[in-house]
Formats: sequence, C-alpha cells, structure tokens
Amino acid sequence: MKGERIVELLETDYPIIQAGMAGGVTTPELVAAVSEAGGFGTIGAGYMEAEAMKDSIREVKKHTEKPFGVNLFVPGHPSSSLEEEEKAMRALHPFREELGMEAAVNPDIPYVFGEQIEGILAEKVPVVSFTFGIPPEEVIRSLKQSGIKVMGTATTVEEAVLNEEAGMDAIVAQGAEAGGHRGTFHVSFEKGMIGLMSLIPQITDHVSIPVIAAGGIMDKRGIAAAVALGAEGVQLGTAFVTSKESGAKRVHKGAILEATEADTVVTDVFSGKPARGIENRFIREMDGRTILEYPLQNTLTKPIRKEAGRLQKTEFMSLWSGQSPRLSEDSAAADIIRKLSEYWKESL
Amino acid sequence: MKGERIVELLETDYPIIQAGMAGGVTTPELVAAVSEAGGFGTIGAGYMEAEAMKDSIREVKKHTEKPFGVNLFVPGHPSSSLEEEEKAMRALHPFREELGMEAAVNPDIPYVFGEQIEGILAEKVPVVSFTFGIPPEEVIRSLKQSGIKVMGTATTVEEAVLNEEAGMDAIVAQGAEAGGHRGTFHVSFEKGMIGLMSLIPQITDHVSIPVIAAGGIMDKRGIAAAVALGAEGVQLGTAFVTSKESGAKRVHKGAILEATEADTVVTDVFSGKPARGIENRFIREMDGRTILEYPLQNTLTKPIRKEAGRLQKTEFMSLWSGQSPRLSEDSAAADIIRKLSEYWKESL
Repeated sequence: MKGERIVELLETDYPIIQAGMAGGVTTPELVAAVSEAGGFGTIGAGYMEAEAMKDSIREVKKHTEKPFGVNLFVPGHPSSSLEEEEKAMRALHPFREELGMEAAVNPDIPYVFGEQIEGILAEKVPVVSFTFGIPPEEVIRSLKQSGIKVMGTATTVEEAVLNEEAGMDAIVAQGAEAGGHRGTFHVSFEKGMIGLMSLIPQITDHVSIPVIAAGGIMDKRGIAAAVALGAEGVQLGTAFVTSKESGAKRVHKGAILEATEADTVVTDVFSGKPARGIENRFIREMDGRTILEYPLQNTLTKPIRKEAGRLQKTEFMSLWSGQSPRLSEDSAAADIIRKLSEYWKESL
Repeated sequence: MKGERIVELLETDYPIIQAGMAGGVTTPELVAAVSEAGGFGTIGAGYMEAEAMKDSIREVKKHTEKPFGVNLFVPGHPSSSLEEEEKAMRALHPFREELGMEAAVNPDIPYVFGEQIEGILAEKVPVVSFTFGIPPEEVIRSLKQSGIKVMGTATTVEEAVLNEEAGMDAIVAQGAEAGGHRGTFHVSFEKGMIGLMSLIPQITDHVSIPVIAAGGIMDKRGIAAAVALGAEGVQLGTAFVTSKESGAKRVHKGAILEATEADTVVTDVFSGKPARGIENRFIREMDGRTILEYPLQNTLTKPIRKEAGRLQKTEFMSLWSGQSPRLSEDSAAADIIRKLSEYWKESL
C-alpha cells in the first residue's frame, strides 16, 4: 500500500491527517471523530495555554483510544517599539469602534511553548507537529526519547531538508493552495508560495523521510494526485473546518461553503504572519497599515475577531480557507474520512 | 485511455502539449520535433508579425506532417499618457546606460492580431490557442468554420466557463505554478493565482469540454497527478525551454537548470502583464517604478532584454520559468516526449 510508512508512523488505518488548525476549530470532538474513523486527528494548540491544551488532550482521550496529534507553533523573537504598537493600535481602532468595543491595551507576548512541551511529555501525546520552524535540538531529543513522533512543516525543498536534518519523522509539505498560516520559516513568505504540483516532487527528490501533502486537497482526486506526485500521506484543513464537529463559527463555515477559488488572499493583517483566508473588509482596509510582528498582531486583533464572531460579522473575522472552497461540504468528520479513504481502499 | 478526447481533438499520439511560449523559444525545430515524437507542438506567435508567423508555420510544415498549433495573445486596449511614457522610460534608462545603449523612443502599440488570424486561416493551422482573453465571436466563428480547433486559457473557474460559452474546444487551465505570462483576464491577477491542486477539480466540476493542466508539470509524476485531478491532457512550457531545439538563450537555459523552486517571482516589469520568471536585478530594481500597460512596457523593455541576451547578462533578461526548475533537463525534445509519454503507455 502506498502510504504505508505514514500509516505505520501514525498507527492509523489511512494516511489522512486532519490539520492542527489553531483558534478553536479543532474541538476534541473533531479530533476524536477523525481518529476514530481511521484518519489522524490533530489538536491545533498553537495559541493554547498549556493547561487548556492538556484539558483538550484529556478530552480527546475520553472519546477515542486511537492515536492523535498536537500541533504547536515554534516561537520566534518578535519585538516592537511603543511607537509601533501605538500605530498598530490606532490602525485597529476604527474596527473596535464599529463593534462598540473599548480602546485596546498594549499587547503582551504569550510565551507558552516551553510549558506546552512539558504538557505534551506529561500527557504522552503520540505525535507532535510543528509549524513556523524547527524547535531547539533538546526539545526534539526529549520528545523522541519519550517515544513521541515528531513532524515538521516545509514550504520549500530547503525547509524540508532542514526538517529531515533536525530528526523529524515526517514532513508536511504545505503548498501555496493551503488555507490558514503559511509555515514558511527559512525564506520570505513569497518565495515559499510553491504550488503542490511543483513542491511535492522537488521535495521528495531531496529527502528520504515520508512527505505529507497539504494544500487544496479536499477529496479523493486530490489524494490520488498527491500520491502520484510522491506524497505518502495527505493533510486536510479546510475540508474539516466545515465539518459538523468543527469549532469554527457557523458564519465561517457558511463563508467557506459559499466561496470560490478566487475569493481567498494571503494576508498578515490578522496575526502578523501571512495566512490564507477569504477576503473581507478587514483585510482590505488594513492593507498598508502598521502590522506588528507575530504574535503581537494576533494578540491585538484577537478581541476584535472574537467580538465580530459573536456578532456574526464576517467582514471583521479571519475566515481561513484554502483555494478549494467549492469542494467543501457540511458533513460529519467520520463521513469525510469515509469518502477520503475511498482512494486508499481502491488502490489496495 | 484517459486523455482520449484531447488525442482526438489534436490528432496526436499523446495528450502532451508543448506550450506556445512567445519570444523566440518555440523554434520551428522544437515545434516539429514535439509533434513528430507524438506530442503536440505549438508556435508561440504572441508577439509575431503575421509574415514572421507564416514563415514559422511553413517551416514547421517542412519538418513534420503532423498537426501542431499556434498560440496568440488576445489584444486589450492599453493607453498611456506621454507623461507616463516618459516616467516609464526614465525608469528604464539606467539599464540602457549600463548596457551602453542609446536613449529609447516612445513606444508604439503593435496591432497584429487581425493579420495573425488571417495568416492562420490562410495557412490552415490545425489548432489555435489563445492567451489573455477570449477573441471576438466572429474570429472564433471563422476559425471553426475553416475546421480549425480553438483552445482558450483559464486561471479560474469563471474564466473556464466563459471559454466554454465562447465555443472553445478545450481549455488550458493554468495553475499558479506556471512560468511565463499569467493568462488571467477576468479577475485581478492575484485572484487568478490558483494552484493546480485546487484549480483542476474545481474547473472540471463546472465545464464539460476537456481541460488541459498547465503549470509546474515536468515529468510523469506531474502528468499522473494532473490526470488524477481530472485533466485530460497536459501542457508543459519550462520543460521545453531547456530542450536542445529551444530558441531560448543559452544563459536562460542555464539559469533554469540551476534554479530552485524558490527562485521565481511573478512580475509585470518586463511586459506590463504579470509573468513568472527567475528573480534578478532588473526585477528587483524596477519594483515600484512606473510600468506601462501591456504591450507598451514590453515594447520598451524588448531592446534592453535583447541586448542583455546578446551580452549574456542574465540580470537584465526575462528568465521565464515555472516553479519546478529542479526537474528541468537539457534533453532533445523527442526524448522529453518519450519520457513524458511513459505515463500514458503505462496507463493503457
């Protein structure tokens, strides 16, 4: 069977991974439903405090005994002057006003990575995947020593090679089609905007660990294409945002279900890092204004997005989506896995 | 056989099309070699005067009796003020100076489309493909009445539907990975930057004429993936730029052979329309300066690129390339077709 190495690594029925999307999409119900159905669920813990992450892990374990993963964001070293902060806050003020919110306070940088790793070790999570870079050597070593599998994210051949050299067990190759945050960490994000048709064969020619394709894959056509290109597994995000178990806001799901392939853009206005989502007023009006580095900008816009979500005001929300929204469906996660696994069943 | 409709339409052995790249790459030798080997060669006549195009067509016919195509650029309605022209010329002056060239003269718009169509009809070219839009109804009608097959280019679902409605026999779906000019004509070019993984299934869900995948495809892995996504044929450009019969400058071929997937950018500085090529000094230094509309900018930069090519100064040339340059090879066109056709032979 093609995909055997990923099936063995993740101990699943099919090498189909539900992406660890941060921001509340990956409810324990979603993660457990995916793993129960024979796929591989992932908690998107990027922004989570360690305690919340551990609660989420325990909740998943209550619903399934099958393996699942946790995705973490590798922290950088952002900085901002008070002047920049004031400018960025002024840029956001009109949106707060329109939502009837009070003035913002200066953002703090949440350093949660160390505690997240401790939590992962304590909870013996089967697999951890990383986005935004490669964690320090000692982190990878301690995870592997505890029998935890590690996966990295790459958007170029060089990033894939760096992941392999760092000891990763597998690589998620994120194509330009992907929704949400760009995982690019070694070149400018523009240089890392490589379509999967180009990315997968060039990466698999240069690494020996298995490569998982991510970006725009929504059904068995995408899975078959990814395998033809040399991928041994697939990771899907948008396909699960619209699922019944997803924690995405109803209006976010609706926006994806109604969107076309030409409706998304890559923008850094929400978090300070480039990410693909459905274009809206917030993206257009923030264009060219002061944006703080990640995660400072994320901290600043979070209350705005939260309030906009409460008011179902999609124009101010981050409506993450990949480039295949026309293929999205409002189904139960188990049904999605069932349809996606048709390719693997047919190819056996 | 998958791809049957394209094989029937183009009367070839395999549904493998050599893209009609403008600017001298598609020599009659290349076009004829591709068609002779069982693929489908295309003359990139976008910028050609009708007489030069007809000479090229006759030359191809001398080398092969098999069918081939001609690609044309659908003209727009550009305009520029004298003031803009002066600004654009000033922006280019440092490059002319560095190359030891004299000052430029104001650009004319070459209107060759009508005469090109007359030439196509006179020479009874089997297939014509169009880039940058859909030609007027009467043009399509007269071509079809003469038994000439017509193909359009689409970068979004809507563009594909417009092509089908206009009576095209097939559509080239150009992914964001593709080298050279973006064919986008109905949305902003940014909105038309859809990776093939997303583009093909969404287009094939919405049209009934056959779809040909273009962008980043270089070997049988790409062909298999394109077919898995729903394409019935493939079109390759970059793979043939480096071929022995290609008219590309030696240094252009060398630049592609040495490039990585992260070396290309999409820029309008050469022609006034966005196109993907290997980043160089010209692209970087022209960023943010006055660029005239296509084809005025093309007319202005053409002598600079020509002189740079003569001096083998790649930093001032348009080094068109898709996102898979690591997969490029310096082979004879017939050998490329032979390797590419392996997929079709295996799938029979």
